[in-house]
Amino acid sequence: MSRETGRQPKYQRIAAELRAAVDAGRYGPGDRLPGENDLMAEHGVARMTARQALGLLQTEGIAEARKGAGVFVRDFRPIRRRGIERLARAQWGEGRSVWSADIGNRELAVDSVEVAQEPAPAAVAGVMGLDENADLCVRRRRFVLDGKPVLLSTSYLPADLVADTPITQPDTGPGGVYARLADLGHAPARFREEVRSRMPGPDEGERLALPSGVPVVQIARTAFDAEGRVVEVNEMVLDSAAYVLEYDFEA
Amino acid sequence: MSRETGRQPKYQRIAAELRAAVDAGRYGPGDRLPGENDLMAEHGVARMTARQALGLLQTEGIAEARKGAGVFVRDFRPIRRRGIERLARAQWGEGRSVWSADIGNRELAVDSVEVAQEPAPAAVAGVMGLDENADLCVRRRRFVLDGKPVLLSTSYLPADLVADTPITQPDTGPGGVYARLADLGHAPARFREEVRSRMPGPDEGERLALPSGVPVVQIARTAFDAEGRVVEVNEMVLDSAAYVLEYDFEA
Repeated sequence: MSRETGRQPKYQRIAAELRAAVDAGRYGPGDRLPGENDLMAEHGVARMTARQALGLLQTEGIAEARKGAGVFVRDFRPIRRRGIERLARAQWGEGRSVWSADIGNRELAVDSVEVAQEPAPAAVAGVMGLDENADLCVRRRRFVLDGKPVLLSTSYLPADLVADTPITQPDTGPGGVYARLADLGHAPARFREEVRSRMPGPDEGERLALPSGVPVVQIARTAFDAEGRVVEVNEMVLDSAAYVLEYDFEA
Repeated sequence: MSRETGRQPKYQRIAAELRAAVDAGRYGPGDRLPGENDLMAEHGVARMTARQALGLLQTEGIAEARKGAGVFVRDFRPIRRRGIERLARAQWGEGRSVWSADIGNRELAVDSVEVAQEPAPAAVAGVMGLDENADLCVRRRRFVLDGKPVLLSTSYLPADLVADTPITQPDTGPGGVYARLADLGHAPARFREEVRSRMPGPDEGERLALPSGVPVVQIARTAFDAEGRVVEVNEMVLDSAAYVLEYDFEA
């Protein structure tokens, strides 16, 4: 829905034309876009201009370069992540994972889990009302979809609350961490999600296999039990090109 | 909360150190960070390494370069935008603007308003169940905070619904568009917000005065009345470094 103006530099106009062709489905996911030589011939521009046009589509997350093969429409349909329905008690109370509703028939899988006991980072200790350096159970997971890493999740829980439960194990059992918190009498009753966007740190870019120039979405989710105790803080880092976050709510 | 490893390249370690110093408040908003010469002397590195470290902080939105003057901590506290409380009927029913809760004592101001009647873009027509090219009232606004543009908002409303009301005027009166929709018997009863992040298009980067390498957050908000009719689609583009989006909800 952006407006194009006549004052745009040439490379931006070429990029806008390619973008419109992708939006209209003339180039689908995985399709190769016209190369530099094609664009030079078609638009009568210098190689640098053609390269800038293709570069712009890459920083917008629409296309990605494959070494030696050209520039391709990113072969990725975004995941619709419903913040509110997704976490409804009906869902995780039934032994389904928090993520199952997001992806239709595609399988979002955890390809690495690390569980550790560690001192609380200052920000988490603050939210939980704990002393800095109080012990936390920390669960670090990476989620992949169609073989592509899309989400890094770091979940922090009070160590004393979850001691000797499956939460301290890689496999937490049906329904996951929230079902186990419910078993303990601390079912989440309220959530807060704080959402930001920024460029990835180098470690995040590598672990999410992000093309250069693609930002991440960062979600800090805080889970409160019925008494208002913070029972989990989950810091998530998402490939921005892989996700649409949806929040539905009453006025 | 990111982990730093010993395997990091030198420029990343220097950037991590500067980032930690900003987080700890040793450099506050608007403060000048050490320059390339300072970092070269302090860490015994080449100019390129010092430059890469400072460049990384810029792409993360933590710092910005000012021509000839150095690299400075971005002078901007993020706006906390509450998706759910913010839109509560209690608020806009009382003649307060949707945005007033976000910013404490700082003034978020509209510095440009354009109202036009235009044919519906395909995506908006689809959501509204209208024919493509059906007429819409389109309100384009830019919001600035502390003199810095932070938000571009494009609001689409069915032209027949809002004809001859203040919604077609730049100034919609107390309570804004939602209060006027309520006057018409079409008060918003339910909202959907869809959130994405991406790099800005060139036009957006210019209108938001974004430093290079800073992504935008894109929110598409759909407002439904009590009968389920879509009464507004609002597409917002936010400076990602200026906003934290907050959503609070029951489990």
